[in-house]
Formats: sequence, structure tokens, C-alpha cells
Amino acid sequence: MARIAVDMDEVIADFNAKFIPALNARFNKQLTLAHLHGTKAEQVFPELAQKIKDMIGEADFFADLPVMQDSQEVLAQMANQHEIFITTAAMEFPLSFHAKFNWLQQYFPFIDPMNIVFCGTKTIIHADYLIDDNIRHFSRFQGEGILFTAPHNIALEGFRRVNNWQEIAEIFL
Amino acid sequence: MARIAVDMDEVIADFNAKFIPALNARFNKQLTLAHLHGTKAEQVFPELAQKIKDMIGEADFFADLPVMQDSQEVLAQMANQHEIFITTAAMEFPLSFHAKFNWLQQYFPFIDPMNIVFCGTKTIIHADYLIDDNIRHFSRFQGEGILFTAPHNIALEGFRRVNNWQEIAEIFL
Repeated sequence: MARIAVDMDEVIADFNAKFIPALNARFNKQLTLAHLHGTKAEQVFPELAQKIKDMIGEADFFADLPVMQDSQEVLAQMANQHEIFITTAAMEFPLSFHAKFNWLQQYFPFIDPMNIVFCGTKTIIHADYLIDDNIRHFSRFQGEGILFTAPHNIALEGFRRVNNWQEIAEIFL
Repeated sequence: MARIAVDMDEVIADFNAKFIPALNARFNKQLTLAHLHGTKAEQVFPELAQKIKDMIGEADFFADLPVMQDSQEVLAQMANQHEIFITTAAMEFPLSFHAKFNWLQQYFPFIDPMNIVFCGTKTIIHADYLIDDNIRHFSRFQGEGILFTAPHNIALEGFRRVNNWQEIAEIFL
């Protein structure tokens, strides 16, 4: 049994499936997933950086994110064999607390709320593995970081990488 | 430099200073701090256990807790020498997220929000020290637990104990 910390956005929550259409609608843009390869929307539209951050920071932004494909089924099975924690950098968007908590209750009811962590820096996380799309969380993590592929990290090397939840199942089930 | 995780309630927030008068007013009781030696209010009034939990769980309960004596000054100095995280078991009371976050911003503005952790079980915390009033958080903590004296833990032995923030200053400053 391993202790596995799992990020939310772009790992179990399909952030971009909501974010890209929301950005396009609000700011009259034609952003696609391909535009985000190796970058972030705030870098594609630097003049909108603060407004984009404000949009994500709205209280209900995270309330209705689609679930990442296969994440429910695989994580439910993993929870039978491993100790699963959800570790999300919620402190960047303090208004998102309730939306994130309720979203987890709705879509991942098998995760005990006692195993949910809202944090900032993830250096504070004590786990064997951290599945995350942001390599910045791996630098001082004492376990093994597993990089979940997202457009912004697609060109990064030097980390164990998984492209989807079936690949996570192959490692942990 | 050590990484020190610090609990909120009954460590930097004087929970009982609000809780006891609030309980007495709402339920027409005469509870005092002395009644809570070695126990919790839910055990003193088992017939009120759920109602007490509901009261604490109200969205604004944690909004106006008094600050624990000397905690601001000592922690501000400690933050110059150590890496300080605030780690609070907020998942028990999900409606408290905003009140707790805002309270920290108000009274401990020198704590970077990136160093705030809302969690359930604290086994997930990776730190050298954990200053907490609940020994249950020490059992699987791999650093050293330091028990901050509170009425409910007053009779417990087997842990390094501090009775106030001056004693914490003596250890870490």
C-alpha cells in the first residue's frame, strides 16, 4: 500500500474543457488546446492575464468542471489498495474552497473528506507519490512526482509521465 | 532553519474564549474552562453533541476568535528564522474555510497564503515539528509533535508540552 497524493485541476478535473470556452466567450477569443502547448493562457494573452486570473478566481468557476476521463473508476479502485489524498493548490483562489470541496463530494464520494488537502506549496505534502500536472510541486517533494500530461507541460522532460488514467491504473493497480 | 507546522484552534486562535460563552448563551448552560479539563463539551453535554457541532460548523463561527496571547509576536519572529506553515483540520467544518482564511489574513498577515494548509488528517503533513493541541495528529506524524496545552489535553502525558507561546519562543528563537 502506498500513499498517493492526487492533484485536482488537469488531473481529475478537466479544467481546460471549461476554461477554454469560458475564456473565448468572455474575451471574444479563439483559443484552442493546441495554443496552450508549452504555455499558459496568461502568456498567450498577457494583456488579459489579470482578468483571466479573476475569472478563475470567481467563487463558482470550479463548481462544474467536467471529470477527467476514467479518473473516477481508476481512483475508486486505487482507493481499495492505496491511501489516496486529494491535494490541490486552492490557496491561490480562496473563493474556490466550497466549489472544490462540493465537487469532490459529488464526483469522488469515496474520498474521505479527512483525506482532502487545500494547500499552497505542496512541499508540505508527505506522500510516496504525487500525481500532478505542475512540475513546480515536484522540486522539494520527497516522494516521487508523476507528471500528468497537460498542454502546458507537454514539452517538459525529466519526469515520469502519464498521459491518462489508464496509464495510472497500469502503475498502481 | 526548521519547518514548523502550527495548528490554529486552541494554539493561535483562542477557540474556548468564544466557544464557552457562545455555548452557554445558546443552550442556557454554565460551562467553564475548568469543566473542560480532560474532556470536551460534547462529552459534558452528550445530549447536545450534534447541536454543538452544528454551532461550530456555522460559516462565521471561526471569523472572530480572539488571538492566543503572544502568538502573533512570537510567530512573526519565528517566521524570520524558520519555515512556518499553518495546518488546520478545516475539513471537519467545510463552511469554515473562508472565515479561517480571512482570520489568518487579518491577524497573521506575515504568513504567506501558500503556507496555509486546510486538511483533515495531519498524517499528510511533512514538517520537522507540529505544534498542536490534539495528540491524535502526532501518532503517524514523522516529525516531532509538540503538545500545546488546552483544557482537554491537560492530563495527557508522553509528549513534549508547551503551555504558552513564551515557551514556544524558548524552543525556537
